[in-house]
Amino acid sequence: MDSGKPLHTIGIISRPRRSDLAVVVPPLLKWLEARGIEAICDEETAAALADDCKPCSRQNVADTAQLLLVLGGDGTLLAGAHLAGPRGIPILPVNLGSLGFLTSVTIDELYPALEDTLAGRSSISQRVMLSAELERAGKVIESHRVLNDAVINKGALARMIELELSIDGDPVCRYRADGLIVATPTGSTAYSLSAGGPIVHPSVESILITPICPHTLSDRPLVIRDTSSVEIKLSGSAESVFLTLDGQRGIHLEPGDRVRITRAKELLRLIHPPKKSYFDILRNKLKWGEA
Amino acid sequence: MDSGKPLHTIGIISRPRRSDLAVVVPPLLKWLEARGIEAICDEETAAALADDCKPCSRQNVADTAQLLLVLGGDGTLLAGAHLAGPRGIPILPVNLGSLGFLTSVTIDELYPALEDTLAGRSSISQRVMLSAELERAGKVIESHRVLNDAVINKGALARMIELELSIDGDPVCRYRADGLIVATPTGSTAYSLSAGGPIVHPSVESILITPICPHTLSDRPLVIRDTSSVEIKLSGSAESVFLTLDGQRGIHLEPGDRVRITRAKELLRLIHPPKKSYFDILRNKLKWGEA
Amino acid sequence: MDSGKPLHTIGIISRPRRSDLAVVVPPLLKWLEARGIEAICDEETAAALADDCKPCSRQNVADTAQLLLVLGGDGTLLAGAHLAGPRGIPILPVNLGSLGFLTSVTIDELYPALEDTLAGRSSISQRVMLSAELERAGKVIESHRVLNDAVINKGALARMIELELSIDGDPVCRYRADGLIVATPTGSTAYSLSAGGPIVHPSVESILITPICPHTLSDRPLVIRDTSSVEIKLSGSAESVFLTLDGQRGIHLEPGDRVRITRAKELLRLIHPPKKSYFDILRNKLKWGEA
Amino acid sequence: MDSGKPLHTIGIISRPRRSDLAVVVPPLLKWLEARGIEAICDEETAAALADDCKPCSRQNVADTAQLLLVLGGDGTLLAGAHLAGPRGIPILPVNLGSLGFLTSVTIDELYPALEDTLAGRSSISQRVMLSAELERAGKVIESHRVLNDAVINKGALARMIELELSIDGDPVCRYRADGLIVATPTGSTAYSLSAGGPIVHPSVESILITPICPHTLSDRPLVIRDTSSVEIKLSGSAESVFLTLDGQRGIHLEPGDRVRITRAKELLRLIHPPKKSYFDILRNKLKWGEA
Repeated sequence: MDSGKPLHTIGIISRPRRSDLAVVVPPLLKWLEARGIEAICDEETAAALADDCKPCSRQNVADTAQLLLVLGGDGTLLAGAHLAGPRGIPILPVNLGSLGFLTSVTIDELYPALEDTLAGRSSISQRVMLSAELERAGKVIESHRVLNDAVINKGALARMIELELSIDGDPVCRYRADGLIVATPTGSTAYSLSAGGPIVHPSVESILITPICPHTLSDRPLVIRDTSSVEIKLSGSAESVFLTLDGQRGIHLEPGDRVRITRAKELLRLIHPPKKSYFDILRNKLKWGEA
Repeated sequence: MDSGKPLHTIGIISRPRRSDLAVVVPPLLKWLEARGIEAICDEETAAALADDCKPCSRQNVADTAQLLLVLGGDGTLLAGAHLAGPRGIPILPVNLGSLGFLTSVTIDELYPALEDTLAGRSSISQRVMLSAELERAGKVIESHRVLNDAVINKGALARMIELELSIDGDPVCRYRADGLIVATPTGSTAYSLSAGGPIVHPSVESILITPICPHTLSDRPLVIRDTSSVEIKLSGSAESVFLTLDGQRGIHLEPGDRVRITRAKELLRLIHPPKKSYFDILRNKLKWGEA
Repeated sequence: MDSGKPLHTIGIISRPRRSDLAVVVPPLLKWLEARGIEAICDEETAAALADDCKPCSRQNVADTAQLLLVLGGDGTLLAGAHLAGPRGIPILPVNLGSLGFLTSVTIDELYPALEDTLAGRSSISQRVMLSAELERAGKVIESHRVLNDAVINKGALARMIELELSIDGDPVCRYRADGLIVATPTGSTAYSLSAGGPIVHPSVESILITPICPHTLSDRPLVIRDTSSVEIKLSGSAESVFLTLDGQRGIHLEPGDRVRITRAKELLRLIHPPKKSYFDILRNKLKWGEA
Repeated sequence: MDSGKPLHTIGIISRPRRSDLAVVVPPLLKWLEARGIEAICDEETAAALADDCKPCSRQNVADTAQLLLVLGGDGTLLAGAHLAGPRGIPILPVNLGSLGFLTSVTIDELYPALEDTLAGRSSISQRVMLSAELERAGKVIESHRVLNDAVINKGALARMIELELSIDGDPVCRYRADGLIVATPTGSTAYSLSAGGPIVHPSVESILITPICPHTLSDRPLVIRDTSSVEIKLSGSAESVFLTLDGQRGIHLEPGDRVRITRAKELLRLIHPPKKSYFDILRNKLKWGEA
């Protein structure tokens, strides 16, 4: 992939418990082997193989591979992105099941997409990721990367929470809301869209801040530059508040906690089929009807 | 209050931990005593009295009183409504702190409001309450009344949930959302408003169904007749879903649970100051500017 | 239709310039004739007949008929409603073209629907209409009925307008907006929905007031009781403002004009196919997916 | 202003018919004269002077001045931007009346702001403008610059219009709506906000596309990169459709017309008071309460 280096090792990570993996994976491995490409499989992928295959941890898969092939839906892709992003390797996302915003290569398009990728003909969409740090009592205690969003929200039984938003050190506002979504453009079509946020094209260098059920009706989604540093302080006496990262990892927050969000250094490189534009996928997913 | 019966017993329930109760309650009790009216106090109210006063449970207060005087905010009023509604006794809600949608009598207006009430000159706003039943495995295991809303929503770490809505036995739609709010007109200016619902005047005989962060962008708030029976079935394999009643009581839901919501038989009678209209309060709370 | 009177005269009004009328109308008239029912046709309908047929004005059609058969879309139905509503005759709306919110009988269902209607087996949905009066300089100069909505809005080149809303004589608020929609529950799925209004079931006795692009972000749609009287005064110095009735008739407004909207005395009776519920149609039109 | 050149000529344009100009303008001119700065006034400004003063056309004012002082509200500033933008001269916007999003220097701050400007101490906010071209029958017949937005919308009596949106030549979607707003980040807090658009910080290099009352409920505001070319084609048989530029100039559109919008080459330089941040102004205008 990179600067002309030939591709000889592909990592494969798969969505857990998909029966179609048993159909997809064995011929895929033969296809790769026939082209002299080594495949390194995570546990889910290895489980789909009848014969003996020793699985690697996903960490190991990502450490060794030059490209990550993700078989699954948007959820598996997010897990793949957390591995591939910091390592600077591209992802080829293949959809099992219904079309996703991120996984727009269908299983029928798998081999053409692989051929395009091997031949260096595929398109790559560069996606900004965010880095989210949790600071408690003056110390950073957690640090993660997200492709879609970092979400602060209240537990089901909690009442509204209070959050103080600052941008580049300037106080912006105090939200009384169910929560707050800080999203990348990629994440603008995920949770933020349900909460009333706009659709932001991945090429817009921006961070999107969308309140969830705000009490102040004029609290509207904000789009700011992605060179900005966003800080959210949990004020008040909230008991049950969580920070959720790409909908996959949840961390309990305590009053006074600060969540700091900035653009991550590395971009995620996402291979996508040349014939589907960003807007084609959008139109299909949002049932917009014909253009 | 009722049909000319003279008012001789007033129950008082108060918001916990309010320092101003020590200022408000003693003279109030003297004022009532001077007019031959017995005051029955809950624990919070009794705690504000220097001298010996045996508190009653809120249940007992409500069982004995002909009228419930609520000192607090909208939260205390909701607790009062759960007691007063089924017993058919009216509430005089007095605000400690900032103006509420429901507690529009300020502390300065307490004595004029009491005098109006004793003289039969006060206005009464009749408010519909809802009855919410939880059915699990064919059996009703919980049953509650709400003045504002019954809310089904997901825990902070859970992903979207799936809910099937039926009205009067007819399937309506399947929501993929953070949750669903079933509200009275009174509740239309509470949580439902933050989730994008309309403002419904208390006199409109209706139930309001507002989705919280729906994935299907055409899932809009629904207003149906309050003679309808609303049923919501929790489908899918949700792990962390709750039913919350007036934001005060939370019940953990299990997959397959059904929540059935109908209009409660009794209306809550809310005494309000004659000079403030519903729209005056709305305009003030929503910062609409002058009419 | 009414109280057992046998149906002997049906009026037919059709959507202009539909080529399929030439296919639909002639056999329909034969079908009716064979059952001893006289058909009275408006000009559009008569034009679809090869042989000699003298058309009536739509007013005459409505004056004579016991039932109005409307062939068209929601637009033709609205025209039919303005005729049928005040005369108390029911409408059988048949769709030419794509399914409408109001015209849910398809052309394939025409004869079964007619048979059901003649046999008294059809369902009738009673729809509230509104009466809209325009008062200028103290005199009522226009008065109309609407099934969907009365809309006050600015011309394309005008800037925002200012409207003062009163309900039952009480001032509610002053809108600075592109306009204001006053809709029936029937109209809640028309223009009001595009402007952010809720879906109101036709059985909810209510009037819906939805601002169009309000400057004050807390100006939310309002649902009030349909026994209320709504008055909107055009304030400021607006030059290009119009009152539009059911999207069909437009009247130029002048500063100081008052538009007064109340529930019309008569209900419109709409015949609908027994197998399609209100929510079935909604689900289909809003692409909600399966229930 | 520019690269150290001393400031010797200031143009002044004022909002028409403001009585306070007679108070503000004469001492302002004396103040400038005392510092050896020539003031060139438009007709509105000159009219506020008792003594003889020959007014210039606004075009001439802009051609001669090194800086444009705008006395008025956001409307006058937009007019100033259309002159200053293409000429590359900065604007010092001074508010007469209520605080505007763009005119955040109050009349009390006029002299300190001028002193800061002369001393080169003022902050300058660079604002992207858009260039809007109207193509009819293959020929560009109009071309304008906007600071806030180019809006295509229907006349008050027209029904919904149909617009086809393409971005960089790719079809995106077909809107059936009242209209479409194409806005700069600066314009995101103007009309687009009323239509449901997000707030976009001026530093985000983007174009905002917000539909007005779309029929397809999933048609959400779009934020795209400002290097993109936006094309909107008016399809269907619309009779009364207009293109409005910054709310000030309206052009009648015909079916088949194409409006092409790209980023203008020059940035507008807006002088603003150093102590008020973008978010301070936002918070104040949107009544967000304290941060």
